[in-house]
Amino acid sequence: MPDSIAQQRNEPDFARAGERIYALAAELYPICRSITGEGVRATLGLMRRHIDLDVHEVPTGTKVLDWTIPKEWNIRAAYIKDAAGNSVVDFANSNLHVMSYSVPVRRTMPLAELKKHLHSLPDQPDLIPYRTSYWVENWGFCLPHRQMAALPEGDYEVLIDSTLADGAMTYAEYLHRGTSEQEFLLTAHICHPSLANDNCSGLALLTILAEHLAPLSTRLSYRFLFSPGTIGPIAWLAANEANVHRIRHGLVVAGVGDGGGPTYKRSRRGDCPIDRAMAHVLRHGFENPKLIDFEPYGYDERQFCSPGFDLPVGLLQRSRFGTFPEYHTSADNIDFIVPRHLGDSLRVIWRAIEIAESDYVPINLSPKGEPQLGRRGLYASTGGDKEGPARAMAMLWVLNQADGTRSLLGIAERAGLPFHVVRAAAQALTQAGLLGPAPAA
Amino acid sequence: MPDSIAQQRNEPDFARAGERIYALAAELYPICRSITGEGVRATLGLMRRHIDLDVHEVPTGTKVLDWTIPKEWNIRAAYIKDAAGNSVVDFANSNLHVMSYSVPVRRTMPLAELKKHLHSLPDQPDLIPYRTSYWVENWGFCLPHRQMAALPEGDYEVLIDSTLADGAMTYAEYLHRGTSEQEFLLTAHICHPSLANDNCSGLALLTILAEHLAPLSTRLSYRFLFSPGTIGPIAWLAANEANVHRIRHGLVVAGVGDGGGPTYKRSRRGDCPIDRAMAHVLRHGFENPKLIDFEPYGYDERQFCSPGFDLPVGLLQRSRFGTFPEYHTSADNIDFIVPRHLGDSLRVIWRAIEIAESDYVPINLSPKGEPQLGRRGLYASTGGDKEGPARAMAMLWVLNQADGTRSLLGIAERAGLPFHVVRAAAQALTQAGLLGPAPAA
Amino acid sequence: MPDSIAQQRNEPDFARAGERIYALAAELYPICRSITGEGVRATLGLMRRHIDLDVHEVPTGTKVLDWTIPKEWNIRAAYIKDAAGNSVVDFANSNLHVMSYSVPVRRTMPLAELKKHLHSLPDQPDLIPYRTSYWVENWGFCLPHRQMAALPEGDYEVLIDSTLADGAMTYAEYLHRGTSEQEFLLTAHICHPSLANDNCSGLALLTILAEHLAPLSTRLSYRFLFSPGTIGPIAWLAANEANVHRIRHGLVVAGVGDGGGPTYKRSRRGDCPIDRAMAHVLRHGFENPKLIDFEPYGYDERQFCSPGFDLPVGLLQRSRFGTFPEYHTSADNIDFIVPRHLGDSLRVIWRAIEIAESDYVPINLSPKGEPQLGRRGLYASTGGDKEGPARAMAMLWVLNQADGTRSLLGIAERAGLPFHVVRAAAQALTQAGLLGPAPAA
Repeated sequence: MPDSIAQQRNEPDFARAGERIYALAAELYPICRSITGEGVRATLGLMRRHIDLDVHEVPTGTKVLDWTIPKEWNIRAAYIKDAAGNSVVDFANSNLHVMSYSVPVRRTMPLAELKKHLHSLPDQPDLIPYRTSYWVENWGFCLPHRQMAALPEGDYEVLIDSTLADGAMTYAEYLHRGTSEQEFLLTAHICHPSLANDNCSGLALLTILAEHLAPLSTRLSYRFLFSPGTIGPIAWLAANEANVHRIRHGLVVAGVGDGGGPTYKRSRRGDCPIDRAMAHVLRHGFENPKLIDFEPYGYDERQFCSPGFDLPVGLLQRSRFGTFPEYHTSADNIDFIVPRHLGDSLRVIWRAIEIAESDYVPINLSPKGEPQLGRRGLYASTGGDKEGPARAMAMLWVLNQADGTRSLLGIAERAGLPFHVVRAAAQALTQAGLLGPAPAA
Repeated sequence: MPDSIAQQRNEPDFARAGERIYALAAELYPICRSITGEGVRATLGLMRRHIDLDVHEVPTGTKVLDWTIPKEWNIRAAYIKDAAGNSVVDFANSNLHVMSYSVPVRRTMPLAELKKHLHSLPDQPDLIPYRTSYWVENWGFCLPHRQMAALPEGDYEVLIDSTLADGAMTYAEYLHRGTSEQEFLLTAHICHPSLANDNCSGLALLTILAEHLAPLSTRLSYRFLFSPGTIGPIAWLAANEANVHRIRHGLVVAGVGDGGGPTYKRSRRGDCPIDRAMAHVLRHGFENPKLIDFEPYGYDERQFCSPGFDLPVGLLQRSRFGTFPEYHTSADNIDFIVPRHLGDSLRVIWRAIEIAESDYVPINLSPKGEPQLGRRGLYASTGGDKEGPARAMAMLWVLNQADGTRSLLGIAERAGLPFHVVRAAAQALTQAGLLGPAPAA
Repeated sequence: MPDSIAQQRNEPDFARAGERIYALAAELYPICRSITGEGVRATLGLMRRHIDLDVHEVPTGTKVLDWTIPKEWNIRAAYIKDAAGNSVVDFANSNLHVMSYSVPVRRTMPLAELKKHLHSLPDQPDLIPYRTSYWVENWGFCLPHRQMAALPEGDYEVLIDSTLADGAMTYAEYLHRGTSEQEFLLTAHICHPSLANDNCSGLALLTILAEHLAPLSTRLSYRFLFSPGTIGPIAWLAANEANVHRIRHGLVVAGVGDGGGPTYKRSRRGDCPIDRAMAHVLRHGFENPKLIDFEPYGYDERQFCSPGFDLPVGLLQRSRFGTFPEYHTSADNIDFIVPRHLGDSLRVIWRAIEIAESDYVPINLSPKGEPQLGRRGLYASTGGDKEGPARAMAMLWVLNQADGTRSLLGIAERAGLPFHVVRAAAQALTQAGLLGPAPAA
């Protein structure tokens, strides 16, 4: 019989798990991903060494909600050479050099014309920006501004050896089945090329989390979704519209390897169980937590929280996206993420899962006056001791608040105590016959 | 076909309008007004050069709610002369010199007796106070404290050439008809003599506003009411009790020419559409806005917000009344009000009217996932750009929040964006077929 | 006919009452009380000189809710003597020296064995701690840490001349009958030995309050309960379960003689009339008020606020319990409490009683527009006076808010005015025929 998540010995060693997440993120980092193509498949191939993914291919042209699956993009090589044939920019050095979804090009052109297709960051002159053009056919190169500004006049040879053709969009799922059909959705986007925090960190963290859950028995089912940003969730929602009511909790996971936050962005509803659980977890056990309200910009929570679905899905990040200078540049590299932060991010999610697994509405079976804890061995025998009462405080809170109107999490919130302390008190009271589950409403 | 207020080219030039309001206030300033009498009629006569007023005369003795229309008061001359026949105080110099509703007097009396009828301000010794005795028959003079303190002993000749006799109380209305019978009430009191801010400013501002609205097509009907403080609204409410349900928004306008605030005092209900609109307008576009809760002291909102009516009527002022030293003294003169502030006060009301005219509950017609804005030309085509998304933010907010539960104003509040930005986004989305009006509840 | 509490001349002279409370507390202070025994009976005997108490004896072994009445404990003498026969600790010097409910002992033992039964406070080395062992049979002595640390090796003679035998638990009630069966419960614990603030202060204050109420006519009935902590209210609730619905307001009174606070701890419900009344009283008229939310630790409100009863009972203290260094030590002596603070604490409760007695839901009988206060002599006759309106402000608030949805206390809260000011305004308006009681809902 599998072990339950509620048994503490099944908790991951977060430090060690952080190292494993980092190692996987480092493997994923070099691959050139986009919203379609072989890069996504190669990424899923590495993740499959850990978990048994169910891979879906959605053909080009398929209608999904308001969108259409685009052509598949692949790239083999790209460069700019000067008139002397010296390499100026080479895709082999960084896959950020080529704007994602660039159409094939093989031409020689003067600098003035080339510049219309060059992207750089004047304020961060040593970094390569990240650019895409998924929905308008175009091509472009990205390079450090200092380098671009120094390009001499003259003719340049431009090559982009890419293909944009009918194919498919690829995404993958992994379902950990619990005793209930109710689901906890955990999802990360799989469309960014060599950006380590955004989102190799999220892909690797969820893979290692799924691997750790695999042998454990859970109440909820855990659905892991790895799909390209925006079009991926759109396609998944289109295919699974009949089943989204099963999603009782959800987290979009992105940018979980840097040293900021942790930051939780609430779901559109703002007061779902996942919102309350995440707020509780961040407040108890993390030094610099940030809680922000939903806004319709960000990651794939935009789709899950569109008004026609309005699912209980929030976003976990470390630094809030767009607020750190490395965001969407070549500085978001494998040195920007840190095993310790990845392990800590895993700990956030694990604590939320613990709450989702074990929260329930208790009821005091001896509600008139306080029951005599002392004769049940639950209370210090010597009265008057100033410290003794503190030890029984969690039990007193549970007894006092367990009137069938609130769950353990609600009691923990009211008492200002960590969930696990309240849960332990509830377990002791249950063993003493003083507490039971409230009848279903 | 008349132009609509929603067309921006119809917006007043607020600087120029401020000059026109000031000019009219300066014309109204010298007139000796009280709650009845020829001063009110003369004031309305000047305002009629701008708008077609409907003037009502309510006879003395008419019962109006808990009150009775008093006798009509008129005054031709008044003075105090010393024993040598030198003028000490002369009504011809300032109509504040005579307590409003003073009964006729023609006597000689010693200083000690006279002093029982003199009013001054020891803390503001150079200013003439403003005093009234509408409901108790009495007479009095108001003068600078410095002058009063210096009066030598002796006999004084006192003349008040006034009449207090059966007549009428005068008030006036102007109705700008919209396509709906729902009304926006705009009202100012017309009972104070030479006090420029309180309330020549309000009378002049509403007159010029009415004049500007006249050629425009509106959804709401706009009712302008100019009546003496307290007894005026009491009489109007008594006569119009059956129709007050039409009033969906209302503003009492008083003291709108000084440099304070702007200050909005909420209606008794506190969360009416006018309260939310005014809070929004003041927060977006004014430097030193003040929002205060309803209290049962102030201007004529007291009557509209009495519990038997409880209408959605708030108060717009600049400085909060009673908080500036010029209040109810001769220092509230024509130099105390400023065209720029008058124009700014008009801008406050105009913005609130814009919201009242164009707010509605939108509904997202493509609510499942985000619709693809890019192929409709509503979204920057190059992804990854850090700035691009900000341009689409208002559209994303409207799409995300347009679930039929909140109006454009509610979306603007939730998004922290100005109403006009949200309205423009809604217009663009409507043109793209993505947004419609919610069906009536 | 007895006088009503609403007549101000019946208000106690709080300074003088504070002296009387102090004198009674000083009489109660030397008695050795515990949760049962002659000490409780002797205490009630002194209180009976002031009020006609109804004393109850609950036999040992009686089942009360989840608890059982314990054996009765009495003590005549106790000491520790050294090998030379010198007295080391003597119960005759302080009844705190013996742990309450110590079983009889008469033995000689070496220091090492004795020390297992000694209690002291290393951080407060000159004070005797207060310790009890009601529910586990044990014995012990309490002494200053400095003294204990200096005890030389050797044999010690130990005597505790106590009895622990079948008997009864004693508690007492006093009921002041009002015209209604609705009750205001006022209760203090009677189980602590020589601790002056905790709770001779509460016992004495409620006794003097009851004595003062005796000749007065009241609307509510006032139930005074003096019972040992925890087991007392448990027994009372068990015996009176059918009648607790009569309790509309309740206060546990403990530690009301020190200079802190006053502190009010809200009932479990948090927004009962007693919670609102106490918050109002503390905000209007006390310099350093503290309002704290319910928590399931403290005094006997724990029992009244257990979820099976959930009564509207809060706690009045001065300093919050456990936050002052004298708490549960010999420093909580008769010098720690002060007549002025006791009188002030009485004033808090008196003000709450005034609200409970006289609060009601008024209704404006002239709700359309403001009624004309002037012709009823309720308003200054000369308008324009800057000060005049303030005098009528409370009347305007009552008229404006008296729509049948809120009581006088609710109006006082909304207006930010003291309850007595609002009540006086309501009386004036009632006399003028403008205000009546709202029909029962």
